[in-house]
Amino acid sequence: MDKVRIGIIGAGRIGRIHAENMLRRPDAEVAAISDPFADDKLREWAAARGIGRVTRDSGDVMNDPSITAVFICSPTDTHVPLIKQAAAAGKHIFCEKPISMDIEQTKEAIEAAEAAGVKLQVGFNRRFDHNFRRVREVARSGQVGQPHLVKITSRDPEPPSMAYVRSSGGIFMDMTIHDFDMARFLSGSEAVEVHAYGSVLVDPSFAECDDIDTAIVTIKFANGALGVIDNSRQAVYGYDQRVEVFGSGGSATAANDYPNTAEIHTADGVLRDKPLHFFLERYNEAYVLETAQFVASIACGTDVPVSGQDGYQAELMALAAKCSLRLGRPVKLAEACGLAKQTLAKEGIQ
Amino acid sequence: MDKVRIGIIGAGRIGRIHAENMLRRPDAEVAAISDPFADDKLREWAAARGIGRVTRDSGDVMNDPSITAVFICSPTDTHVPLIKQAAAAGKHIFCEKPISMDIEQTKEAIEAAEAAGVKLQVGFNRRFDHNFRRVREVARSGQVGQPHLVKITSRDPEPPSMAYVRSSGGIFMDMTIHDFDMARFLSGSEAVEVHAYGSVLVDPSFAECDDIDTAIVTIKFANGALGVIDNSRQAVYGYDQRVEVFGSGGSATAANDYPNTAEIHTADGVLRDKPLHFFLERYNEAYVLETAQFVASIACGTDVPVSGQDGYQAELMALAAKCSLRLGRPVKLAEACGLAKQTLAKEGIQ
Amino acid sequence: MDKVRIGIIGAGRIGRIHAENMLRRPDAEVAAISDPFADDKLREWAAARGIGRVTRDSGDVMNDPSITAVFICSPTDTHVPLIKQAAAAGKHIFCEKPISMDIEQTKEAIEAAEAAGVKLQVGFNRRFDHNFRRVREVARSGQVGQPHLVKITSRDPEPPSMAYVRSSGGIFMDMTIHDFDMARFLSGSEAVEVHAYGSVLVDPSFAECDDIDTAIVTIKFANGALGVIDNSRQAVYGYDQRVEVFGSGGSATAANDYPNTAEIHTADGVLRDKPLHFFLERYNEAYVLETAQFVASIACGTDVPVSGQDGYQAELMALAAKCSLRLGRPVKLAEACGLAKQTLAKEGIQ
Amino acid sequence: MDKVRIGIIGAGRIGRIHAENMLRRPDAEVAAISDPFADDKLREWAAARGIGRVTRDSGDVMNDPSITAVFICSPTDTHVPLIKQAAAAGKHIFCEKPISMDIEQTKEAIEAAEAAGVKLQVGFNRRFDHNFRRVREVARSGQVGQPHLVKITSRDPEPPSMAYVRSSGGIFMDMTIHDFDMARFLSGSEAVEVHAYGSVLVDPSFAECDDIDTAIVTIKFANGALGVIDNSRQAVYGYDQRVEVFGSGGSATAANDYPNTAEIHTADGVLRDKPLHFFLERYNEAYVLETAQFVASIACGTDVPVSGQDGYQAELMALAAKCSLRLGRPVKLAEACGLAKQTLAKEGIQ
Repeated sequence: MDKVRIGIIGAGRIGRIHAENMLRRPDAEVAAISDPFADDKLREWAAARGIGRVTRDSGDVMNDPSITAVFICSPTDTHVPLIKQAAAAGKHIFCEKPISMDIEQTKEAIEAAEAAGVKLQVGFNRRFDHNFRRVREVARSGQVGQPHLVKITSRDPEPPSMAYVRSSGGIFMDMTIHDFDMARFLSGSEAVEVHAYGSVLVDPSFAECDDIDTAIVTIKFANGALGVIDNSRQAVYGYDQRVEVFGSGGSATAANDYPNTAEIHTADGVLRDKPLHFFLERYNEAYVLETAQFVASIACGTDVPVSGQDGYQAELMALAAKCSLRLGRPVKLAEACGLAKQTLAKEGIQ
Repeated sequence: MDKVRIGIIGAGRIGRIHAENMLRRPDAEVAAISDPFADDKLREWAAARGIGRVTRDSGDVMNDPSITAVFICSPTDTHVPLIKQAAAAGKHIFCEKPISMDIEQTKEAIEAAEAAGVKLQVGFNRRFDHNFRRVREVARSGQVGQPHLVKITSRDPEPPSMAYVRSSGGIFMDMTIHDFDMARFLSGSEAVEVHAYGSVLVDPSFAECDDIDTAIVTIKFANGALGVIDNSRQAVYGYDQRVEVFGSGGSATAANDYPNTAEIHTADGVLRDKPLHFFLERYNEAYVLETAQFVASIACGTDVPVSGQDGYQAELMALAAKCSLRLGRPVKLAEACGLAKQTLAKEGIQ
Repeated sequence: MDKVRIGIIGAGRIGRIHAENMLRRPDAEVAAISDPFADDKLREWAAARGIGRVTRDSGDVMNDPSITAVFICSPTDTHVPLIKQAAAAGKHIFCEKPISMDIEQTKEAIEAAEAAGVKLQVGFNRRFDHNFRRVREVARSGQVGQPHLVKITSRDPEPPSMAYVRSSGGIFMDMTIHDFDMARFLSGSEAVEVHAYGSVLVDPSFAECDDIDTAIVTIKFANGALGVIDNSRQAVYGYDQRVEVFGSGGSATAANDYPNTAEIHTADGVLRDKPLHFFLERYNEAYVLETAQFVASIACGTDVPVSGQDGYQAELMALAAKCSLRLGRPVKLAEACGLAKQTLAKEGIQ
Repeated sequence: MDKVRIGIIGAGRIGRIHAENMLRRPDAEVAAISDPFADDKLREWAAARGIGRVTRDSGDVMNDPSITAVFICSPTDTHVPLIKQAAAAGKHIFCEKPISMDIEQTKEAIEAAEAAGVKLQVGFNRRFDHNFRRVREVARSGQVGQPHLVKITSRDPEPPSMAYVRSSGGIFMDMTIHDFDMARFLSGSEAVEVHAYGSVLVDPSFAECDDIDTAIVTIKFANGALGVIDNSRQAVYGYDQRVEVFGSGGSATAANDYPNTAEIHTADGVLRDKPLHFFLERYNEAYVLETAQFVASIACGTDVPVSGQDGYQAELMALAAKCSLRLGRPVKLAEACGLAKQTLAKEGIQ
């Protein structure tokens, strides 16, 4: 079997993680990596890994006929044009989340990929986490019956830089979007309405960025099930990533991962180490699996495990949550696009 | 020290639990028990426990000058008149929750007790649970910093009878009211607004009773913290009662209690027994403590640990949640009474 | 049904615990309590509990024809004569462990009870613990197959006084004896040989008392299964009482009990409170159950749940462990009595 | 920095694991692999990994002057001659455990390496396990005080083939040897005496191989601490690898690792998946670390983390346990060599 030849666009942290993970696979090879800021350091890094080409121009990747698939790991505002270019060049696409911050453009990008007949996978890596996969498997198996409640706890150990926050699209588009996807993944149903509460409790700078750092979003699913996501930008004890599906036959829960199982019992109490610190530790294996399945779906001609439509739905939920927070009322997904145009646009938010 | 002489009004399950718990105390004695349906069986039960008087008329208890305090354990619609009578008779009052289903009447009852200078404790037994007390203690100590999120999971193992549901005042007034109190107990702040989502997923009969069986209520607290409560009338694995306070310095969580710590490891997996089945098992110790503290507060002339005002606030939250569900929007506590009059009353709901 | 009328001999801590537990039962009453040091304080305590008679002479209890059963809670060296007296007086007997420190006398006492046709129950309260009962139940059910290994961890939170140690009969007879009984209870087989290692690591005073404070005893059972008990007189984190039965089909384990399920997650790690402190907290419920079953076995004419023979076997294991430690080799139970006479007696140990 | 050039001797499972782990390291390269049964399949496997040379003759590896270090992953009876050859050739040595089944030869091999001034690391991979490292770290830090008890549970999920058992040197030399090393690693003291009980409970074939399948070994350490190891060849629920260090200041425990944290709560109880199945899953990361540290110690000229002497001591404990089981008494490590010669040799065991 021929190896799938891959081009990486964007050599930031996540681009390099995907490159490294590809390098260990027998069925894929990284042919090129592009980054507008490519320098000697990147060239050295690439050389040590046998990556043949380093370029500042993503066009070099797009125009390389030997390349079958691209990983779009560049800033969010470049995703849509790059997807369109890749689709036009007939390359399969793995795109980091979110596809874009403009739901209409997201739609266009998806349509472009569909029209070109190329695969488009969105980087919802958490679907590949060992804990969440198992909960989903249990939920799907019927062991806990019909889902009634889906609960997601998702807290970062520390806030990103304010520079990042400013261009992040806000907490719902940047952080909760993973949880919106997880809610769909676990509930087996589509969200029809969301309600959001948000506060600035971690750092007043979030308010200056017109953002929040603490949120609770509740969800109404088409099948009557209810969902809730709670987020914080700062859990001082580490990355807090837990889920629960509660149903007519019981519940399936997933707790955090820890660096070890050691417990220390002393006169002061029982102590154990904090959970794994952040996403690189917790989702290390999930990153490997999502790219493995992307490559396998190309090699085998099967569907990608997370589609463009999955990306779209999560963005729509984020948009609805944003509107809900702004308007102080629950917002139906069906009205989110319209509301966003009227309200958010008016305020220059989107 | 003289024993506190107690009269129990209402000889149902909870009335008899309180009586039994009092019997074991050296500082209290149960002088009388009244119930409109008192029969030979109750008389036998009382005799075996050395309870001197069994009567069908609660007036006999109220008029007994040797009785210092009454436990009002009769149906909810009798609470307010009984509180007023007891206050008029100068007796301290322990009243089961909710005080009433009409917030105005609840207010009147509280005022009657205050005017008469008698103590009024509301039966929010969960405040005395070993797990929740510890979480509150941690939260208050500052070990987890300023509270940002309060999360409460509260699910019954099985639904009550529909006869009970019909007169229960609805899930928020009957079941969530405990969680509303817990939210206040743990957050150290007052709720200012709530939003409720509800579904009928357990049993369609709930819809016929104009009620729901599955709910997620979100809360905005005065200090900016956010809260969420999820409820189900049926968790097949047993009574699910967990809480979490997340703050700037970490989080404090409380898991369920189990009948034992045994784990069975076999080729099929690791199995342990279900959590304690229901409130009688889980809150057994909490019932003992709440009555002990009520008696102690009478004996020592100190404040009761759960006041009439605590009862009022929880009812107000329940009322606001009811309005929110009905109106499909968040409802401020400040507007709940007015809305209830306009909207719910119009529909003959309250 | 008539109540079982009980006399308590010995008004120390355990005597009073049994008395209190009896007082709450509808099927038993405490008619008298005797203690050579009975004083006004004890009389007051007894009066408050409706115990009719307090005496310094155990003979008053033995000669009271209205008394059906006695609890022997006096010092170990009085157990055998008291059992013989009680048997002669036709009273059923609940005797604290060990029956005696002289295995021959233990045998005589058991025979006296058998000859008199009275029941004799030994105070191995741990058999009634919720965790250990469940493990035994699982082991007996066959869920974990044939037992291969039995493991018992048994550590006290703090050492007893040296005065107590001196008259305790040594760690094996005083402390490990409970674990020897537990090993039989869980394995479903009789021990045939034991090997003991011991050290003085907690407090050098133990060496002065010709005793040890840290021990590991291994056991060979008749069915080929192996067992191990580890003991310490001082676990600074609290009472450590865990068991495991490992078999051909899996394992059943029991962990410690904790005062609550609260967990505190901070930047320093995850903290929970220490296990329950000591036997009064941990085995509170087990004490209630063992006496309830003793009374029930009298009332129903059924066998007691822990027989004199159970007491004898555990003492024999303790004796064999003592010989093993002394001789530096494994000791068969069949040779323990003989060895004890030769070796220990020679040294004035027994 | 030049890469450390490595030759692998023995292309069985463990040889290939080490090779794969080396391939991912920037500081090492696998130059050659030898195996007497090298075939096209192995050649293909090696080619895909860029391993330049595949040979049937380990001499080709030993004589390659470009090779700095060898991994000896061949059958145990070849270890000593290969160590001597490698030492003579001036190559650093990583040798799988045990070095040999003849303690005298082990000594000779160690001396050969010392004389040649090459490093010799023994494959006690469990020292690098995340859980056990943490327990050791806690024990060494003094957080649990002076060690009093060390407890090790070590059970395989399924027995090896009887062909393997026959040449394994017996359970103590093959399986418990890891635990003997762990006991030294955790206790911070040398064993002075051991006592072993063993049974054939899993499969009668073990008896035919003059071996056992179930064992409890107790240990006396030089510092007075006591240790216990329990082993089974078959834990149907998976690989059971737990440790505990109990000391004057508390205890440090390590539980098993699980494939996920999911828990399923149903009407039947709470279920979670079994522990990780076997050593490849559980010690995957530990294998990576042990080889990384071996390479680093060569590159940096520092001591290897597990020395030949560590290998020797564990073998001595295994030998003493073997003698103890045979003789039915505790055996001092100081007498083990002599006893082995007299007793075991006489029976043709060693």
